[in-house]
Amino acid sequence: MISLDKIYHGAHVLKQVLRPTELIRAARMCPDCNLYLKNENLQVTGSFKVRGAYYKISQLSEEERKKGVIACSAGNHAQGVALAASMNGIKATICIPDGAPISKVEATKSYGADVVLVKGVYDDAYEHALKLVEETGATFIHPFDDELVIAGQGSIGLEIIDQLENVDAVVVPVGGGGLISGVAFTLKSLDPKIKVYGVQAAGAPSMRDAIKDDKIETLSGVHTIADGIAVKTPGEHTFEICKNYVDDIVTVTDDEISTAILELIEREKVIAEGAGAASVAAIMFDKLPVKGKNVVALVSGGNIDVTILSRVINRGLQMTGRLTELVIELTDKPGQLLTVSEIISSYGANVVELDHNRGDRHIDINDCILRISIETRNREHLNEIINALTKSGFKLR
Amino acid sequence: MISLDKIYHGAHVLKQVLRPTELIRAARMCPDCNLYLKNENLQVTGSFKVRGAYYKISQLSEEERKKGVIACSAGNHAQGVALAASMNGIKATICIPDGAPISKVEATKSYGADVVLVKGVYDDAYEHALKLVEETGATFIHPFDDELVIAGQGSIGLEIIDQLENVDAVVVPVGGGGLISGVAFTLKSLDPKIKVYGVQAAGAPSMRDAIKDDKIETLSGVHTIADGIAVKTPGEHTFEICKNYVDDIVTVTDDEISTAILELIEREKVIAEGAGAASVAAIMFDKLPVKGKNVVALVSGGNIDVTILSRVINRGLQMTGRLTELVIELTDKPGQLLTVSEIISSYGANVVELDHNRGDRHIDINDCILRISIETRNREHLNEIINALTKSGFKLR
Repeated sequence: MISLDKIYHGAHVLKQVLRPTELIRAARMCPDCNLYLKNENLQVTGSFKVRGAYYKISQLSEEERKKGVIACSAGNHAQGVALAASMNGIKATICIPDGAPISKVEATKSYGADVVLVKGVYDDAYEHALKLVEETGATFIHPFDDELVIAGQGSIGLEIIDQLENVDAVVVPVGGGGLISGVAFTLKSLDPKIKVYGVQAAGAPSMRDAIKDDKIETLSGVHTIADGIAVKTPGEHTFEICKNYVDDIVTVTDDEISTAILELIEREKVIAEGAGAASVAAIMFDKLPVKGKNVVALVSGGNIDVTILSRVINRGLQMTGRLTELVIELTDKPGQLLTVSEIISSYGANVVELDHNRGDRHIDINDCILRISIETRNREHLNEIINALTKSGFKLR
Repeated sequence: MISLDKIYHGAHVLKQVLRPTELIRAARMCPDCNLYLKNENLQVTGSFKVRGAYYKISQLSEEERKKGVIACSAGNHAQGVALAASMNGIKATICIPDGAPISKVEATKSYGADVVLVKGVYDDAYEHALKLVEETGATFIHPFDDELVIAGQGSIGLEIIDQLENVDAVVVPVGGGGLISGVAFTLKSLDPKIKVYGVQAAGAPSMRDAIKDDKIETLSGVHTIADGIAVKTPGEHTFEICKNYVDDIVTVTDDEISTAILELIEREKVIAEGAGAASVAAIMFDKLPVKGKNVVALVSGGNIDVTILSRVINRGLQMTGRLTELVIELTDKPGQLLTVSEIISSYGANVVELDHNRGDRHIDINDCILRISIETRNREHLNEIINALTKSGFKLR
């Protein structure tokens, strides 16, 4: 059974490994509420996962320590287990699906774990991990459905209460439910007035559905950029704890998550992964009754692959009118491209990419198509340029 | 004259405004040294500038407070002065060159300052600011060459000594020299054993040159992505202090800075602007004798425009073999594009962009050119794909 004494003990043990993650007041991200960020993306290994993994591993018996630990993860849990095991002098084997970003594989190795790349997806890697457990007698470290793991995550609840007086609400990303179970149990045990809200990706609402239907179910599929919370089946322990201690679970879309990632970059200079930004997205997009409240958004991690980050930024730039591809029909006579360039330049916009193509079958044989990507300051600035081009007789698609 | 008592007094006054910026141990970014980051990019306003501006403004007389303050800046100083003035209940007018990123203008306004957009570059905005000072009698808040401003920045030195025992060296980005003057004076006064190194952009080495030639000079131009340290002329006070208290000043290129920005994102989940990452770049690229030492890199700020950030990330991806445009000559017969797609897909690479063009005059009339941008895991992965394409008879440019 989860208990406050395990959570206090976990917090004590974790002093050996944790970085202090201060609450940061994010005044400009929520004009209607007093928003604080608990930046676990700045935690060692780039996420909160090291808390549960470290506490669990630190409590193994001498016999268990000798046989090592095994885990299965393509992300944050892998790095948490790897660091925790190496700091405890224990051998760790992590099964990772072979399509995982190389950066996460490398990070896991750099913390001293043996990595087994398993052909297929997460489920295949999980099967392989269980097989290895049977063969070796090593201890399987579950990413969320384990009471010591949950107790380790609960240390975040203690820190929040310690760092901010009069907390009204805490908003927590939910995948398998380990993080929110630890945090909700801790906060509700110490101060039942504090609201604890969960946030899931709209494309992976497993815990929300389970609680609504009052039974554990398995989603047929998950689809979200927030891979850290793309979990098909909630845990048994976590389901019970969420049912009893969590006030509500809401969902956010990938576009909302992307916008939150961009806001965190521009306003607070921190990188959140999709799962990590889900809590902030729920607040930004008014999914929760937190107006006028002291709210803590738990930014759970920052391990986003940089190629995905680049796409998220570009999408955010497009959404806010700062990066746009204009498609212009030109009459194929000299000087057209020059005129377009002059107009764009006179408004201080920046040309990023240009494609000038004569072969489009939808247009007149004498015309051609210019595709031009420009950087603008905002949507207004973009509209000024579009108007100027239209006024000069250019036809924009 | 700068003095320790001003620095201690500044630190005391600054308690009203500062966020705690902890030292973060960045173990993986410097295998040869014990590297710590002082993340002033996580400071309020996204940079250290608020320290000097706040201390300076807090010390104005009643008479001066009534007439308000004026500053000139396209970046961090603007936001620092704006916040400091509004917290002190003083009117602030900030002159900003009109080409500045809209995000910085908006941020400055959001802290409650009046913004005057001045046609031209920094020098024009500076002229205009001085004119306004003459007209209004307001106090000009210099971005670096002011002893109270310097004393305010010195508070960082006190924090570093407080946060880490046995500091061997501190590495500081240098533009006009206000930050390093405050930090170097503080550290050398308290513990002369600590080395203080400055880092400038290779395209703007004004302080390094001035010290080398032992006189203040003005660079004919500056060219760097690190706009926060792109300063043509060092200050008079800062020149004297740097001459006496700084151990060495080295330079880093824009490519080195870009790589450091990417490393800070991937390893530490924080956004640094070019100037902010310069200190880290100097360490990563072995410009300083810090092997085996306890080194603190001052990451001075994180206010990078997100369009520039996107370009920096893309460049970093290209440099590390993770984003590549392949240019392939195809014979114009059916099935060629399919074969290329199959090969790329079989290696698990991701197609980002594709352009299939028949009109290139450098190739045979029956051939055509395929430009295809792919995401790969690293340079090895990229080479595997290139080899497979070549083996199948495709000609890559």
